[in-house]
Amino acid sequence: MTEKIARFFAENRPATPCLVVDLDVVADNYDRLHGALPDARIFYAVKANPAHEILSLLVERGSCFDTASVPEIEACLAAGAPADRISFGNTIKKASDIARAHALGVGLFAFDSVEELEKIAEHAPGARVFCRILTSGEGADWPLSRKFGCEPEMARDLLLRAAGLGVVPYGVSFHVGSQQRDVGQWDLALSTTAAIFRDLEEKGVTLRMVNLGGGFPTRYLKDVPTSQEYGAAIAASLRRHFGNRLPETIIEPGRGMVGNAGVIRSEVVLISRKSNREDDRRWVYLDIGKFGGLAETMDEAIKYPIVTERDGGATEPVIIAGPTCDSADVLYEKTDYRLPVDLKIGDTVSILATGAYTTTYSAVNFNGFAPLRAYYI
Amino acid sequence: MTEKIARFFAENRPATPCLVVDLDVVADNYDRLHGALPDARIFYAVKANPAHEILSLLVERGSCFDTASVPEIEACLAAGAPADRISFGNTIKKASDIARAHALGVGLFAFDSVEELEKIAEHAPGARVFCRILTSGEGADWPLSRKFGCEPEMARDLLLRAAGLGVVPYGVSFHVGSQQRDVGQWDLALSTTAAIFRDLEEKGVTLRMVNLGGGFPTRYLKDVPTSQEYGAAIAASLRRHFGNRLPETIIEPGRGMVGNAGVIRSEVVLISRKSNREDDRRWVYLDIGKFGGLAETMDEAIKYPIVTERDGGATEPVIIAGPTCDSADVLYEKTDYRLPVDLKIGDTVSILATGAYTTTYSAVNFNGFAPLRAYYI
Repeated sequence: MTEKIARFFAENRPATPCLVVDLDVVADNYDRLHGALPDARIFYAVKANPAHEILSLLVERGSCFDTASVPEIEACLAAGAPADRISFGNTIKKASDIARAHALGVGLFAFDSVEELEKIAEHAPGARVFCRILTSGEGADWPLSRKFGCEPEMARDLLLRAAGLGVVPYGVSFHVGSQQRDVGQWDLALSTTAAIFRDLEEKGVTLRMVNLGGGFPTRYLKDVPTSQEYGAAIAASLRRHFGNRLPETIIEPGRGMVGNAGVIRSEVVLISRKSNREDDRRWVYLDIGKFGGLAETMDEAIKYPIVTERDGGATEPVIIAGPTCDSADVLYEKTDYRLPVDLKIGDTVSILATGAYTTTYSAVNFNGFAPLRAYYI
Repeated sequence: MTEKIARFFAENRPATPCLVVDLDVVADNYDRLHGALPDARIFYAVKANPAHEILSLLVERGSCFDTASVPEIEACLAAGAPADRISFGNTIKKASDIARAHALGVGLFAFDSVEELEKIAEHAPGARVFCRILTSGEGADWPLSRKFGCEPEMARDLLLRAAGLGVVPYGVSFHVGSQQRDVGQWDLALSTTAAIFRDLEEKGVTLRMVNLGGGFPTRYLKDVPTSQEYGAAIAASLRRHFGNRLPETIIEPGRGMVGNAGVIRSEVVLISRKSNREDDRRWVYLDIGKFGGLAETMDEAIKYPIVTERDGGATEPVIIAGPTCDSADVLYEKTDYRLPVDLKIGDTVSILATGAYTTTYSAVNFNGFAPLRAYYI
């Protein structure tokens, strides 16, 4: 937790649960990512946290934006981003939304199927398009399904077809999986991508851009490689597979840009046992759970560090759950979480590295609880 | 889908995604549950769908209400429910919320630990309290963890202790698991409950009430027993375990009250394949997903029937996914869903039995998408 956040909590004692994001950390993350991959343009994945304060800060620093929907595009424009710095990166778009984005000046669109390519060609003629390819997602903490992307052979065919449809075949994108801790995963995807570039070049189509996606991890319970390590590994892979003809590159950090900038403050509502046995593990119920912003604890995928005001003494293993009447609203039961033996009902706890994928995941009104409040300082 | 809902869609063509709830079906469900268990008081589980229209209708019919939070209590009062028809059924409550409920006139509280019992005694002196016991949850579609309830031996000790703390030991509650299709599960829990009643009677404490919880299922893809079958089985179990000294009983239907009353209308955003192979399963992407109201598709637990305007012809197996950039936003991949071969992008589909646990589960702004709109007709 940064000093600024600690001071905010001390001075304001905001009602819990709430998220506080230190904008200096976001700025620092931007600079560090930019330093690690100086030749790549940064497209911030707005879905990670679309707060106006974050978007404005990134606009000023020169960031571009990867958006998932028209409201996200509008949020970027409202924060001062020029339309040519916005990419419509969702491969699943309604025709009406493509048309709206086109009308707003957005000129860069993702696709992974002939159906989507045809929609873009019809509703955003002349746009630059990039095709997303499938990757395995091995090494990532947040599951990566086959939902996005197509097989490389299909991507090659579709990019060849794009020019004939009146759009510009611009490049290839992939995503190695969110919270990807294996830097080598980018190499495999870049090798496949370079092969597509070569194939198309032979057929007279020159692709320009490789979209390296996101996946840059935040430090939760385990250590993760630094931005520098990622940058060095990716730069080496680019040279290895593209030689002297380096493409434009873009990256789409979301978690890596804002994850470690936020802290959620929560209150302990109840600590109890299920039986009279003293060795029965205690349950600690917080006033935030899976439906109040911590959706990424699904299957205990993301393991947030939790600190308390009583840290330093004896601890015991606990099960941590949310405040709703939903039996699935358990945060950590299999993972070995330990909390102080003398933790009390009414204490506050701080859930670290919660700047990404929390506020907007929050349910609108589940069990009558309001969505997560957030402060950007 | 009822005629009334079909007519609403035809006449209003509302923007998708949206939920339409037929209030006549809710009224009918209430009457049927009341008929099936005429001696039980019905406490509607507000969390299933807290819409004002539903609460008002149920107030008029004489229903009581099971609430999870102060905002839910306030919603019931706003709909005209007297405070003595409201139970604060969440076993995880902040002291300040207990005090607030008490001030609003609520006099019936759930607990499952000594810590919660002490909070209630301090902040709602004189209240009637009931202790929730653990059950296995076998036979239920929606997972039931050990999050709620304590072992029966502990429940007995706590209820014995309650009177000394200045609250009224009123009864025992259990929950056999949401969408419970095995009517026999109530018998096991009632046997345990009757033993607690006898134990306490011997020690001079007379419990009055058995809270049978919810669990009454809605028909999704599979057939479920009728309300009558549940009612008959539960009545027989009560006679078997309590003999002539039948306790007051209450039930807490949520899904069973509103599940089958609602239909979600959604648009097909994209249909595509991941490769050039013709035998590759097609992906159908809807404009609603796991974060837009269909959270209960988590692990494909709840399998909603999906109907289209093109039903009747040839079908093919499909993977069904939501519109967000989240790779976990896949609704059905393992379950064998089939949709028409001639289904087209831009078609609408109807997702049936979606009246419960949809609107409030909806994320507040994930990927920029607005929460689920709903109409109550």
